Amino acid sequence: MTEGYSELANETIKAANGIDYAYRDTGGGHEGVLPLVLLQHFRGNLDNWDPALIDGLAATRRVITFDNAGVGGSAGTTPDTIEQMARDAIAFVAAMDFGQVDLLGFSIGSFVAQQIALTRPAIVRKLVLASSAPQGAAGMHGWAPEVIGAVGTPHTSPEAYLDVFFARSAVSRQAGAEALRRLYTRTEDRDTATTWATREAQYDAVCTWGIPDHALLQRLSCLQMPVFVANGDSDPMILPHYSYLLAGLIPQARVKIYPDSAHGFLFQHHAEFAADVEAFLADGG
Amino acid sequence: MTEGYSELANETIKAANGIDYAYRDTGGGHEGVLPLVLLQHFRGNLDNWDPALIDGLAATRRVITFDNAGVGGSAGTTPDTIEQMARDAIAFVAAMDFGQVDLLGFSIGSFVAQQIALTRPAIVRKLVLASSAPQGAAGMHGWAPEVIGAVGTPHTSPEAYLDVFFARSAVSRQAGAEALRRLYTRTEDRDTATTWATREAQYDAVCTWGIPDHALLQRLSCLQMPVFVANGDSDPMILPHYSYLLAGLIPQARVKIYPDSAHGFLFQHHAEFAADVEAFLADGG
Repeated sequence: MTEGYSELANETIKAANGIDYAYRDTGGGHEGVLPLVLLQHFRGNLDNWDPALIDGLAATRRVITFDNAGVGGSAGTTPDTIEQMARDAIAFVAAMDFGQVDLLGFSIGSFVAQQIALTRPAIVRKLVLASSAPQGAAGMHGWAPEVIGAVGTPHTSPEAYLDVFFARSAVSRQAGAEALRRLYTRTEDRDTATTWATREAQYDAVCTWGIPDHALLQRLSCLQMPVFVANGDSDPMILPHYSYLLAGLIPQARVKIYPDSAHGFLFQHHAEFAADVEAFLADGG
Repeated sequence: MTEGYSELANETIKAANGIDYAYRDTGGGHEGVLPLVLLQHFRGNLDNWDPALIDGLAATRRVITFDNAGVGGSAGTTPDTIEQMARDAIAFVAAMDFGQVDLLGFSIGSFVAQQIALTRPAIVRKLVLASSAPQGAAGMHGWAPEVIGAVGTPHTSPEAYLDVFFARSAVSRQAGAEALRRLYTRTEDRDTATTWATREAQYDAVCTWGIPDHALLQRLSCLQMPVFVANGDSDPMILPHYSYLLAGLIPQARVKIYPDSAHGFLFQHHAEFAADVEAFLADGG
C-alpha cells in the first residue's frame, strides 16, 4: 500500500445506467483476492469512512468505497427504496468490471448489501453486515426519536454524531473524538456533501425497510454465502438484538457484538474489526 | 445448604391432574427468592442433572428438579406434544403451591419451558433456555442421523452420550468423563429409568416441534419476561444458530455461547453457567 485512504484520489466511472459514480480505490495488486466493496451509512459519503478502518482492511485486499446513485459526488437521484439502491450498486460493480466481490455494508449500506445478495447472489462471495437488521423485523420502523433527532436534522453536529456512533463511556467517547479527527484528516479534495434530498430519500427507504412484516424475515433463509454479522453492544440506532436475529435467520452466519461501543463500533474497534473481517474473508479461501 | 444434590431424597407430590410427580428439592430457605424449577432433556430423569450444576445453582436459591408426567419416577403417560408436556409441568408447579417461579429448560425441557411461558406467562418470572430452538425453525425436524443414532437407541452407551453432550476436544471429553462420574455418584435411591415409551413419545414431540413453519417463529415476540439463551458452540443436537434465532425473536433476551462444548455445555461449564444464571436471575431483582 503506497498511500493511506486519506490521500486517495476521487475517481469517477460511468455505469450502464448512465450514472457517473464517485469512488476511491486502495488498489494494491492483491493477486487472487477479490475486491472488497463497501456500502456506506445513512447520509454518509466517501469521507465518512474512517481511514484507520479502510487502511486496516486494505492491508490484505483491494478496498473500494463509492457513493451510490445520487449520494455525495455521484450523479443521479437518491432512490427511496433499498431495492433501487441495490440495483444502483450492482450497476457500479458491473461498471468496475468486477465479476464477483466481497461486500461490506454498514447501516443502511448493510440493508443494500442484503438486497444485493438476494437479487444478484452470483456477484457476492462473502458478506459482512455491520450495524444491520433484516427487512420486516418488528420495532425497526424508523430510528428512535433521539437518534433521528440527532443525525436526521438539516445540520448535524459532531456531538450528535458521537451520541449515535459511540457509547456513553469515557473510553468510547475518546475513541469517537479520535475517529472524528481521522475523518477530517483529509482537507483537500473532500467528497461533495450529501444533500437534504438524499437524507429524505434514504430515510424513506429506512422506514420502508422497517415496516413490520414477519413473513419477510424468511427471505434470508435462501442466502448461501457465508455472512459475518457485527454490531456494537450499545448501538441506539440498530439494536444488537437484530444482529442475533440476522445470525439466526441466515444459514451460514457468524456474529460478534463488540463491547462498549455503538453504531460506529467498526470505527472505534477498527483494528479488531479489520482483523475479524480479514479472518472471515480469508477463512476457507 | 446441608447436603448436595446426590444425597437429596426422592419426593412425590400428587397434582390436580391425579398424577404423582417425582421430584427433588434443594430447599435452603432463601427468603424473597423464587424457586428455580428445572425441565429435563430428552430421556432424562432426576439422575441426569449434573450434581455440580445443581449444587452451584442451589447456593443462592431453592432448586427443584422433577420428572414430568410419564417420565422416570413420575406416574402417568408421557405425552407426544410439547403443549401437553407444558400442561403437565404447570400442574406440577401448581401442586407445589408456587405462585411464580424462575424456569430453566434444557433441550426438550427448553421447548416445554417456552410453551409454559407462552401458555401461562403469569407463573414465569424469568426464563433460561439451554440448548434450545424455537418451534417451527427450518432445519429442526428431528435430530441429525448421528445424533438420534447415538442417543435414540434402546440401550445407550456412555460413549454415545459423550458424542452428543461433549465436544471433540480432549478438554471437553475429559469434562464429559468427569460429568459422567458425577452423574453416577449416587448409588442408592436412584430414579426409575425412563422407558422406551417415553423415548418414543418425546421424540414424536421433538419432531412435531421441528415441523418447519416460519409463521410460528413469531410466537416468541409476545414474551415479556427476561430470557437468557445459552448453548455450546459445538452442539450437534441443537445448533447454536438457533440460540441466535431465539435471541433475535424474543424481545428481552441475552445470549451466550460457551466455547469448546456441545449439548451438555451446562455440565461442562457448570460453575460458569451457574454464575451466569445467578447473575441473570439476580439482575434487577
